[in-house]
Amino acid sequence: MTSRPRTGIFGLGSMGYGMAQSLLRAGHELAAFDIAAEPVARIVAEGAQTGNPADLAPGLDRAVIVVLNAAQTRAVVLGNDHAPGLIDHLRPGATIIACATVAPDDARALAATVQARGLHYLDAPISGGAAKAAAGKLSIMASGSHAAFAGARPALDAMAEVVFEMGPEPGQGSAMKAVNQMLVGIQIAAMAEAMTFGLSQGIDVARSYEVITRCAGNSWAFENRGPHVIDGDYRPASAVDIWPKDLGIVLDAARAAKFSAPLTATALQQFLAASGSGLGSQDDAAVAKVYARNAGLTLPESDP
Amino acid sequence: MTSRPRTGIFGLGSMGYGMAQSLLRAGHELAAFDIAAEPVARIVAEGAQTGNPADLAPGLDRAVIVVLNAAQTRAVVLGNDHAPGLIDHLRPGATIIACATVAPDDARALAATVQARGLHYLDAPISGGAAKAAAGKLSIMASGSHAAFAGARPALDAMAEVVFEMGPEPGQGSAMKAVNQMLVGIQIAAMAEAMTFGLSQGIDVARSYEVITRCAGNSWAFENRGPHVIDGDYRPASAVDIWPKDLGIVLDAARAAKFSAPLTATALQQFLAASGSGLGSQDDAAVAKVYARNAGLTLPESDP
Repeated sequence: MTSRPRTGIFGLGSMGYGMAQSLLRAGHELAAFDIAAEPVARIVAEGAQTGNPADLAPGLDRAVIVVLNAAQTRAVVLGNDHAPGLIDHLRPGATIIACATVAPDDARALAATVQARGLHYLDAPISGGAAKAAAGKLSIMASGSHAAFAGARPALDAMAEVVFEMGPEPGQGSAMKAVNQMLVGIQIAAMAEAMTFGLSQGIDVARSYEVITRCAGNSWAFENRGPHVIDGDYRPASAVDIWPKDLGIVLDAARAAKFSAPLTATALQQFLAASGSGLGSQDDAAVAKVYARNAGLTLPESDP
Repeated sequence: MTSRPRTGIFGLGSMGYGMAQSLLRAGHELAAFDIAAEPVARIVAEGAQTGNPADLAPGLDRAVIVVLNAAQTRAVVLGNDHAPGLIDHLRPGATIIACATVAPDDARALAATVQARGLHYLDAPISGGAAKAAAGKLSIMASGSHAAFAGARPALDAMAEVVFEMGPEPGQGSAMKAVNQMLVGIQIAAMAEAMTFGLSQGIDVARSYEVITRCAGNSWAFENRGPHVIDGDYRPASAVDIWPKDLGIVLDAARAAKFSAPLTATALQQFLAASGSGLGSQDDAAVAKVYARNAGLTLPESDP
């Protein structure tokens, strides 16, 4: 008799919730946690358990952490003034799978602490969006020891379409994620710059989209975010405020390596202008509003 | 009995030669011209005529102009100190199809002169590269009068997979091309920035390519130019020096519209640094060498 894989998931946001569903669908015995009660209740209705992490963590073979940033990942793993962390409760030999976008240095530091406690650490940032998370079709850029990969494998198999094994050291996965975020961030801002430049030349945004998606100017970011501008729909699939964080991670790593990254630095300024002018919680395509405002142009607005 | 369409083509570079082949394949009676003797001899061997434009132009219904820039387009159409231009030889009602990437203002000015002489002018920049030119599968962003489209149609049908009709005024096609070039230029520089940043983080360029082409950071430019960096092959499919010209066109149009385009301006600086340091005639992926040099990194080099 084969027992079911015993997995915990910490964080049930737009990515984590879909990953939890993928784990359930793959037959995992799942313990799910979030500070918000509503997604916890929903995933429990789909078959997960929940409760006090101190009670449930000792029974887990692995814990997937899908929170917003390094500080939240550290709080879950190490605890804080108010609560102990996962490292105080997981059994020796269990594996922590850290999925947030964090600086490679933060991944290395946290991994060292975790490994010193007899646990495994997989640095495992994700790419693909909420729909792919729910379908178990994420791309995961992972690095860590052989034991960390082995411990994580049942969860990776459930959540990912492809796992890029970036090397044996935590931090290598996060470095690859930084390269990806550099490109996505630049290319979302480039979409905004091009759509609004076209408008300044008398080309409406839907027409630019139609042409560019069939020409050499196309990118995943253009194709994915362009419709938000055309529809004037800035409900956050992914918020502006992700980018000051993620491009900040990229530029910190670049500065430490004495690497000059002028396009990344420029894209960051545009997202900061968006955030600083009150658009931080809107969809990141709202960076187009910065360009439009600066040029006195009018973008489509959705009907209220 | 239907007579064959009578078309001239001026410019037999990597794009023009393929377009000439597509016109021949579609049954056009083709007159072909270039200042270089070698491609003229080749296309004549494939079935085109050549000779003195003054003798052949009066028999043409349309002339496709595929030269490097606005100055060369003007020289072919208007002539110069040494030679008369097409407008002195084409029959009234013939159509000029101008395919170079030029400023929208230049397209408008040249069209006005051409139209004042009783000829039609289609502003018809192209996208797609040499392989698509030879296959008759270009994307063409065209604008002009109904008569200009009608006169150009047999050539458009032979050369293009898709013709985007951007409006009735010359300049609208060139404006759309400027939007496309803005994105391609930014995204080639972003490819270079990301490949070399990855290298600074210990990720080799082939690995970055493998991961990014399956993640959200992907773009047409990344996918198309990345292999040149991986192979260290900078033979010019499209040269660095295209970009100071094309991004200059974009930024001139942007400045006239008081449109702030910081990513485009930044990308231009990187191509200028490439050109200024002696890489102007190499493939535009060589902008990666600027990043590598600035960060003390070593890129792959092809075997000599």
